[in-house]
Amino acid sequence: MKMMIPIIIFMISCLLFSFSSSQPSMFDFCVADHTLPFGPAGYSCKNPLMVNVNDFSSSGILNAPNTDNIYKAGLSTAFVDAIPGLNGLGISLARVDVQPGGVVPLHTHPDATEVITMLRGNLTVGFISSNNTVYVKSIGTGDVFVIPRGLLHFQVNSGINLSVAIAAFSSSNPNTQIVDEALFKSNLATKIITATTFINPIEVLRLKLLFKGSG
Amino acid sequence: MKMMIPIIIFMISCLLFSFSSSQPSMFDFCVADHTLPFGPAGYSCKNPLMVNVNDFSSSGILNAPNTDNIYKAGLSTAFVDAIPGLNGLGISLARVDVQPGGVVPLHTHPDATEVITMLRGNLTVGFISSNNTVYVKSIGTGDVFVIPRGLLHFQVNSGINLSVAIAAFSSSNPNTQIVDEALFKSNLATKIITATTFINPIEVLRLKLLFKGSG
Amino acid sequence: MKMMIPIIIFMISCLLFSFSSSQPSMFDFCVADHTLPFGPAGYSCKNPLMVNVNDFSSSGILNAPNTDNIYKAGLSTAFVDAIPGLNGLGISLARVDVQPGGVVPLHTHPDATEVITMLRGNLTVGFISSNNTVYVKSIGTGDVFVIPRGLLHFQVNSGINLSVAIAAFSSSNPNTQIVDEALFKSNLATKIITATTFINPIEVLRLKLLFKGSG
Amino acid sequence: MKMMIPIIIFMISCLLFSFSSSQPSMFDFCVADHTLPFGPAGYSCKNPLMVNVNDFSSSGILNAPNTDNIYKAGLSTAFVDAIPGLNGLGISLARVDVQPGGVVPLHTHPDATEVITMLRGNLTVGFISSNNTVYVKSIGTGDVFVIPRGLLHFQVNSGINLSVAIAAFSSSNPNTQIVDEALFKSNLATKIITATTFINPIEVLRLKLLFKGSG
Amino acid sequence: MKMMIPIIIFMISCLLFSFSSSQPSMFDFCVADHTLPFGPAGYSCKNPLMVNVNDFSSSGILNAPNTDNIYKAGLSTAFVDAIPGLNGLGISLARVDVQPGGVVPLHTHPDATEVITMLRGNLTVGFISSNNTVYVKSIGTGDVFVIPRGLLHFQVNSGINLSVAIAAFSSSNPNTQIVDEALFKSNLATKIITATTFINPIEVLRLKLLFKGSG
Amino acid sequence: MKMMIPIIIFMISCLLFSFSSSQPSMFDFCVADHTLPFGPAGYSCKNPLMVNVNDFSSSGILNAPNTDNIYKAGLSTAFVDAIPGLNGLGISLARVDVQPGGVVPLHTHPDATEVITMLRGNLTVGFISSNNTVYVKSIGTGDVFVIPRGLLHFQVNSGINLSVAIAAFSSSNPNTQIVDEALFKSNLATKIITATTFINPIEVLRLKLLFKGSG
Repeated sequence: MKMMIPIIIFMISCLLFSFSSSQPSMFDFCVADHTLPFGPAGYSCKNPLMVNVNDFSSSGILNAPNTDNIYKAGLSTAFVDAIPGLNGLGISLARVDVQPGGVVPLHTHPDATEVITMLRGNLTVGFISSNNTVYVKSIGTGDVFVIPRGLLHFQVNSGINLSVAIAAFSSSNPNTQIVDEALFKSNLATKIITATTFINPIEVLRLKLLFKGSG
Repeated sequence: MKMMIPIIIFMISCLLFSFSSSQPSMFDFCVADHTLPFGPAGYSCKNPLMVNVNDFSSSGILNAPNTDNIYKAGLSTAFVDAIPGLNGLGISLARVDVQPGGVVPLHTHPDATEVITMLRGNLTVGFISSNNTVYVKSIGTGDVFVIPRGLLHFQVNSGINLSVAIAAFSSSNPNTQIVDEALFKSNLATKIITATTFINPIEVLRLKLLFKGSG
Repeated sequence: MKMMIPIIIFMISCLLFSFSSSQPSMFDFCVADHTLPFGPAGYSCKNPLMVNVNDFSSSGILNAPNTDNIYKAGLSTAFVDAIPGLNGLGISLARVDVQPGGVVPLHTHPDATEVITMLRGNLTVGFISSNNTVYVKSIGTGDVFVIPRGLLHFQVNSGINLSVAIAAFSSSNPNTQIVDEALFKSNLATKIITATTFINPIEVLRLKLLFKGSG
Repeated sequence: MKMMIPIIIFMISCLLFSFSSSQPSMFDFCVADHTLPFGPAGYSCKNPLMVNVNDFSSSGILNAPNTDNIYKAGLSTAFVDAIPGLNGLGISLARVDVQPGGVVPLHTHPDATEVITMLRGNLTVGFISSNNTVYVKSIGTGDVFVIPRGLLHFQVNSGINLSVAIAAFSSSNPNTQIVDEALFKSNLATKIITATTFINPIEVLRLKLLFKGSG
Repeated sequence: MKMMIPIIIFMISCLLFSFSSSQPSMFDFCVADHTLPFGPAGYSCKNPLMVNVNDFSSSGILNAPNTDNIYKAGLSTAFVDAIPGLNGLGISLARVDVQPGGVVPLHTHPDATEVITMLRGNLTVGFISSNNTVYVKSIGTGDVFVIPRGLLHFQVNSGINLSVAIAAFSSSNPNTQIVDEALFKSNLATKIITATTFINPIEVLRLKLLFKGSG
Repeated sequence: MKMMIPIIIFMISCLLFSFSSSQPSMFDFCVADHTLPFGPAGYSCKNPLMVNVNDFSSSGILNAPNTDNIYKAGLSTAFVDAIPGLNGLGISLARVDVQPGGVVPLHTHPDATEVITMLRGNLTVGFISSNNTVYVKSIGTGDVFVIPRGLLHFQVNSGINLSVAIAAFSSSNPNTQIVDEALFKSNLATKIITATTFINPIEVLRLKLLFKGSG
């Protein structure tokens, strides 16, 4: 019986949907409707008649994130899942806090450029190009730093104060691939890791323990 | 004689350019070279051998802008002209300061979505869709607000404190079209303004005086 | 009972859909199916087996529009809602008629370039760039005029004959944002209008009456 | 000596170019400068300071084309070469005139959708999808017909009056590949034509004579 | 009763779908779900929780195709219908086998570039540009040949050995429009074919018989 | 004196360029001209009058690469630098040979999807998604495997025979970022590496020696 409820909700949303499509269509925006199918270009659009200003905003979304983890760093995200009005618009934001001694570990955003603005404190920010050139710099409050799409990069707080930055992304739903987690938190076989990274097996096992990977 | 200098600089840059193109090409990024032609997709790329970390960053670029103007508001921009590494990446930033009683007047970004994050104070932010629905909200520190590409929008500081926000744009070079300036700071004929806006001619002349337009 | 009918239609269309997807897929085109969800890239595709030539054409769609309104102008549109075969193809058409003394008031198309061809009569056509330069010209039969995406523009018929033009748009569903209607036909508060446009409140109220706005 | 003039013009345009780039950049549009290199996204942009309204318009460009040819049909084009302001905007227009008994022969636009509006007379318009379905229809004044990007299509005037249509294209520079001309006006070897089209060699030679091909 | 089963499957997939969307979203890829609606950008995405490595691979898919047909040529395809993980990624592959004396007849891919690699034997490969220039070459093992998007092209095996090539396409679902089949396998009226191709009617009828067309 | 030669070549190419632009423009393709500036969308186009079939093909380009290196693997590339006709078309190819016991080490292509076809032998191929799920499979002759854009991936030859594969990329100039080389062949400081990867410093130094990095 309980299973029927989502079905009915789905049907009602279909009805509303059909109804709205007999109205003048409205493609100024395409607010994400997470109950409908999604495709390569993003989520399906919410019935325009049901859209309101709250679909385009979120309160307190960029408050201080939790940094109580191995990285001493945390992320508050304002991506399309939190702000459905971002759907299809190719942009989103996050707040990054890094405690003294903390890092945002080596990672990529497979399909997004990142632009960082320092609000507080300092960070050593760097990226590496595909010909192995390192672009690294210490930045402070009011500074801006660009990390082109898809490249390996990192942030390090080697100062003594909390660092706070706003990161803007050229995607409404930027993914983050952390190299350590891809290797050592996953179930990738140790044999494959050692073969494809040349890290010695003892170190691989140590890192698997640290990141709680299996395989 | 003086005119020769830019020519020679241009030629030298051509030489460097030719030289670099015999190296392995490098399309991780395309740092803007403002001395070369530009096209619909952005500026030409700087010789990759001449690129360094400063092409991707700028210090103090988002410091407080001047707000001593009719709007009591100001903008510090981190667009591709200031940070050439943004070229072709479809993203940029600005800092917006609005004094108490100040406004960012009715305007559009003809080809960019804007995402605002409040850092300090409060703003009434709103946009209007093409079916004349108003999406308006008061936002405060830590709040985020999305303005979909191309739509008329505004910000008003009706509080008693300075408001500071970071705006991210889905373009490396977002233009701003302020309706008042398009009409009253330009040389658009009064006859055309009254005919196409229905604002009465006396009010048009008053606004032309205010915005120092001609025509 | 009546409510069940659309559900059943929806289900049948799902069945047809599933059936067709076991056929060789066909992406030469994606004819809009308005009963299915739509996304940032456009409407869902109609079952290819159900597509016929009428999905790609419309008879008399560009006949003379009604011009009996405040603008003395009218629009007949051939957008994706009327011609579902336009879906996803980034192009559409309209016919614009402007009576003597009529105007197409100041407006933008938030995400479309417009190219106008004069079929009959004359129009003064203009757009304003984001640095407040006015590009304006009187055009007659056989002339073509381009209005780049997102910019404020207008048409004025200052002649004594009806003007007829074909407008092509770089979108299958171009929206039109008329500045007057956004401000004075909506429920945007007078206080916000005066603050963000500098138009005096008496004039704002007069225009609200004219355009039947509230707020 | 004469050869020097274009060089000097080129250099002067470089100087102007450099000068303008120290001005606020202006990406509302990118008017084609045919003297500068062009790339996959279109022509380089003309110095914004040199742009004027005539870059966005053309007088009499869609006047009646010459139809005194084998097809009894003609084309007046408003493409980016005639209207440089179309550069990068993905749209353009043409006027198509077809005399009674005339045709626009079987052809494709390799990277553009076409939308036809009949202004006068009648045409039988059709396209063929890649699964060999024919979509064909007779259209008259005020009718609109869509030909999706890249597909084989044709127009036939089987009436007794001149037919006049406006064609809009989803490209600022749409190419036309006429199958007959590709095969019989080119220097493609008869042996290859017969092998790849199965048309018998005698007919191929007749058509080569008709279209003045070699090979 | 039987008809209910797909409905229930559809509903269950909706439920799963809804469930998964409460998980962290995952846009690294969008594996095609052929039971859901599709749009201009591709198929809807499969529930990420249901995706596995087999969605990204296929065994033996590029084995030798059947070449027992009029062309003495065959195609094994690795398109999105066979490998759903290709959805939205703009790339796919095929294997092309051509027997001695065989051809890939004159055709276009309406929205895809093709890059051919010869694995075995030789082929005469050519394409024709829209200004009727022929680009033709004999290629052998280890050679690569590019056919730009949308242009008429062909392959001929004039050697004495089987030719095998891998073709890569810039689309996950490239269509093929064979000119002979569009004209002579379809139901296009002979009168239209002769008028728009100038091929004489007797030859048209012979080719219709050969390709089993009607009309 | 010698320095003048490239300048003169550049000027002559400008002259030719200007000349060609008075011809009917030709955007069927945009063959790369490496002597002209390039931008975010690719290289400038070669003068169309100078283009010939060799710009679209290359002989023997996918012959066996050298595998005498630390990875026991090698790559022969057919990218835009070798085949200028690929410019702007978003596709390219490579041949990958992996000796028994060899690997293509952990890497990404920052802006390209890869599709692998096995021609000979076997490979264990895998990629990791951004939520740390591993998609790994052993593939053999005739099998195809897709690696979505930007994700970490690898190939391992754990068999006893040479493995040969063709890789197609959704970019005309795909870059490869090898994680080991980014970290250990560059001049990235050991302190930063250990902080951002958690690999112990002794192992970092060993890997720096192996990959000949500095810093």
